[in-house]
Amino acid sequence: MRKVVIIGVGAHVCGKMLDKSLRDLGRVAIWDAISDATIDAKEIQVAYVSNSIAGLITGQEGSRGQTVLRASGLGGIPVINVENACAGGSTAFRGAYLEVASGACDIALALGVEKMFCDDTPRVVRAIASTSEIELSKMGVQFTALYAMHTRNYMQEYGLTPEHFAKVVVKNSYNGSLNPYAQHRTPLTIDQVLNSRMISDPLTLYMCASISDGAAAAILCAEDIARQYTAKPLVEVSACKLASGVFRGRSDTTIPTLSEIVAQSAYKEAGISPEDVDLAEVHDAMAPAELMEYEELGLCKKGEAARMIDEGRTKIDGDIPVNPSGGLTARGHPIGATGLYQVAECVWQLRGEAGKRQVHNPRVALVQNRGGFVEGDDAAAAVIILRRRA
Amino acid sequence: MRKVVIIGVGAHVCGKMLDKSLRDLGRVAIWDAISDATIDAKEIQVAYVSNSIAGLITGQEGSRGQTVLRASGLGGIPVINVENACAGGSTAFRGAYLEVASGACDIALALGVEKMFCDDTPRVVRAIASTSEIELSKMGVQFTALYAMHTRNYMQEYGLTPEHFAKVVVKNSYNGSLNPYAQHRTPLTIDQVLNSRMISDPLTLYMCASISDGAAAAILCAEDIARQYTAKPLVEVSACKLASGVFRGRSDTTIPTLSEIVAQSAYKEAGISPEDVDLAEVHDAMAPAELMEYEELGLCKKGEAARMIDEGRTKIDGDIPVNPSGGLTARGHPIGATGLYQVAECVWQLRGEAGKRQVHNPRVALVQNRGGFVEGDDAAAAVIILRRRA
Repeated sequence: MRKVVIIGVGAHVCGKMLDKSLRDLGRVAIWDAISDATIDAKEIQVAYVSNSIAGLITGQEGSRGQTVLRASGLGGIPVINVENACAGGSTAFRGAYLEVASGACDIALALGVEKMFCDDTPRVVRAIASTSEIELSKMGVQFTALYAMHTRNYMQEYGLTPEHFAKVVVKNSYNGSLNPYAQHRTPLTIDQVLNSRMISDPLTLYMCASISDGAAAAILCAEDIARQYTAKPLVEVSACKLASGVFRGRSDTTIPTLSEIVAQSAYKEAGISPEDVDLAEVHDAMAPAELMEYEELGLCKKGEAARMIDEGRTKIDGDIPVNPSGGLTARGHPIGATGLYQVAECVWQLRGEAGKRQVHNPRVALVQNRGGFVEGDDAAAAVIILRRRA
Repeated sequence: MRKVVIIGVGAHVCGKMLDKSLRDLGRVAIWDAISDATIDAKEIQVAYVSNSIAGLITGQEGSRGQTVLRASGLGGIPVINVENACAGGSTAFRGAYLEVASGACDIALALGVEKMFCDDTPRVVRAIASTSEIELSKMGVQFTALYAMHTRNYMQEYGLTPEHFAKVVVKNSYNGSLNPYAQHRTPLTIDQVLNSRMISDPLTLYMCASISDGAAAAILCAEDIARQYTAKPLVEVSACKLASGVFRGRSDTTIPTLSEIVAQSAYKEAGISPEDVDLAEVHDAMAPAELMEYEELGLCKKGEAARMIDEGRTKIDGDIPVNPSGGLTARGHPIGATGLYQVAECVWQLRGEAGKRQVHNPRVALVQNRGGFVEGDDAAAAVIILRRRA
């Protein structure tokens, strides 16, 4: 397979934007990426578009990507609409990657776009629940409940307390305050997090990613022609791995989780080990997940994530910054767009363009994105490893 | 890119099956394909799953493919859920093809599964309309209306009458009567077609594909290892092309349509011309479309499709059989599954396994699948060229 680089990324700010449509959001992200790549829009040969709940929120199924691309002036190229719950963004990225890597085309667009806010919040909540197995969701076993159960299990295993999760939110809300794309830009304190409304014990309101509108995009290019387009540092896709649940549950913590499996496979493909990662954007849909993910990604050993957050090692100025963007809890979590927000943040960081939230001189970045639950295991998990070229 | 062959296909019968779920339908198609390929299910490394309207009919979004695969005993492999309105099946096929062609894996599954029937028919009609641009659908410019307008235009240009469209239905309903997978197995007469209820002038009821439940699957394999698995004739994927609308409308018949563009590109890739095609499965969502498609695919010259159906050239025993399966109007049109039913039919035909509807010794088969309307042009169109290996 051919080497693939990212030559452009773009995004719309995350937030509550009742006056903006799927098209408005998508158009901004697409043209932000085109402008970043300094290419002519006509050079884009194929588009992968991720969206999760437009069918249930706006009524638009089937041709979602086409309606957005047409409104962006990009009619006429093949559009592949993909969906993988909260991992849809990385699934779209992987599709675009495979197009270029295989030689099917030279330049591909990946777009994630999500419109969650509407005038009917119960509908939104049902739509979110529907990205997991609906038979279980309807019994109340939806995202917050499942995360709460996993979290309880994790606390019991390693002796964590809610303060540890609050520390994740404090870090991420601070990072978000530095990110012009973030939905939530107010730094929170441990007390504020712990005293916010209880959603599903031990998860309080501020530990949970909120409803969000947003769109993010990346333009991928065959490495051998990338210099025709951009003078910016090239960001190589060193690995792009996706997996779906093995459905063995998580009650036994000795069984590797899906993120663990997919991370190991990504490290192998990239030819690196976790110690080589300079920054990570991970899927903190609920704050405790970030800690479990430190361990799943091998950023620390099993049971050591609590100490990692206690020691501040994952802050922007720590030795392994995690979620400098603010993560899902602060930057925002527009379901099908999240994976591409994570990619965009890593690209900005690797290029040294992340402004006040810039991590010191990173060379290797990791994206971890996951989505859906089927029989209690992740429906999808993806790990992408990006590397700045010399 | 590597050579890719199809080593197995499978399907559930099309029809109204209120007692069957998405999982029930998908499971049958998957295991029919696995059994046909004579492989161990564990050999399948990735799955592309197409579904169009489960979100609106069953409430299941996001992890649709995972829920079906899990229920089929295939948990643990990466699942990519794709959607492209009525062209979703060919889009899933193309994804699986690209996985194998690129070398990302050796064996990939493509599944299309659709559950349309429910106890609320207006909901189904809205769901179907939502696969096109909803702003236009809501004004009444949905599939039947758009097809009727295109048909009127076509009739005026070339002097066709409703009898020509009725002849398409007569042919396809006869073919469907020979197909154990078909939803409608009663041969119809010209009078029955013309006298059936008017849906959108000049389209009568029997000229329109009906609501359908169904699932179809294909297993794709790298050619160099295919003989490890199957002793059946191998079916090579000689071309697999997808495009989205150029949105120039169709009022000017001198402008190539999307199917025309994508067919030309597929012929070029396969290194053949339309004369080499021995049979075609085309997208007769409304019967007149089949005639327009004869011309778009180059099976005859512009304006000659009427004579082609008059002369019976596209019957099973004609010189270029089209829709031996019965097509969408007779076999059935379970939206996201249709493209894979078309592929399955071509594989059975190329292998000489099509029973009473067997075309005489075909070597090259063409699939044409299309879906959605955005600004009056197809949201997606795909052409796949399959060839029996010596």
